[in-house]
Amino acid sequence: MESVNIDFEKAGGLVPAIIQDYRSGDVLMLGFMNSVSLAETQRSGEVVFFSRSRNKLWKKGESSGHVLKVRELRVDCDADALLVRVEAIGPGVCHEGYRSCFFRKLDSNGHAKIIDERAFVPETVYGQKQGKRA
Amino acid sequence: MESVNIDFEKAGGLVPAIIQDYRSGDVLMLGFMNSVSLAETQRSGEVVFFSRSRNKLWKKGESSGHVLKVRELRVDCDADALLVRVEAIGPGVCHEGYRSCFFRKLDSNGHAKIIDERAFVPETVYGQKQGKRA
Repeated sequence: MESVNIDFEKAGGLVPAIIQDYRSGDVLMLGFMNSVSLAETQRSGEVVFFSRSRNKLWKKGESSGHVLKVRELRVDCDADALLVRVEAIGPGVCHEGYRSCFFRKLDSNGHAKIIDERAFVPETVYGQKQGKRA
Repeated sequence: MESVNIDFEKAGGLVPAIIQDYRSGDVLMLGFMNSVSLAETQRSGEVVFFSRSRNKLWKKGESSGHVLKVRELRVDCDADALLVRVEAIGPGVCHEGYRSCFFRKLDSNGHAKIIDERAFVPETVYGQKQGKRA
């Protein structure tokens, strides 16, 4: 057991936080955390990001109800990235209606192909189409 | 099929790239890519990062031989993060000798606990202990 200081300085006060489904192992999304959002995530047991575009804390699921319950928090060797293994409440985490934000495959010509089915209708959940968050 | 422009500008020319074992689903590491490293990754079929600390392209496995063969490349909804599903050559990706860089669990008091076994002896593979890369 060692004390670890997360290296927030390497990326201007933020660290990337990978969100992984703790049961399936699927990667659901990537967000960023600052020290306050990490502390709030640890305190509440539900994922709180820092939104770069809105420049404020962003509780995942605040409008959709699709919160991410933390099952395990891991830190990498350099302490500059987090892996958050979660139980995702609801049908999907993506504001476009997919289970995972990584629903597109990229080919070498820069074309993206959708490789998953929509899990919910975003307009029903969010009221209107959401803009960028992360 | 749609053309997608990766949003490198949101983080100063870089996007985070999550490396996931395509068989087990385990998250192995997180690196950053700029447009050149992404193009080189796509061209060669092996992961090339951009090292923020060394400020240059960093071919994963260049010294260890532990290259990451790309099996599938995914992009997220906002096109500002990549998920690279790989076949990892060798016993592990971490310069500290572990299979995954996420070998430590973080508790709410800021303590980290090692939850995996070393897969190789880093000094044997690298010659000497490596510093930070990402």
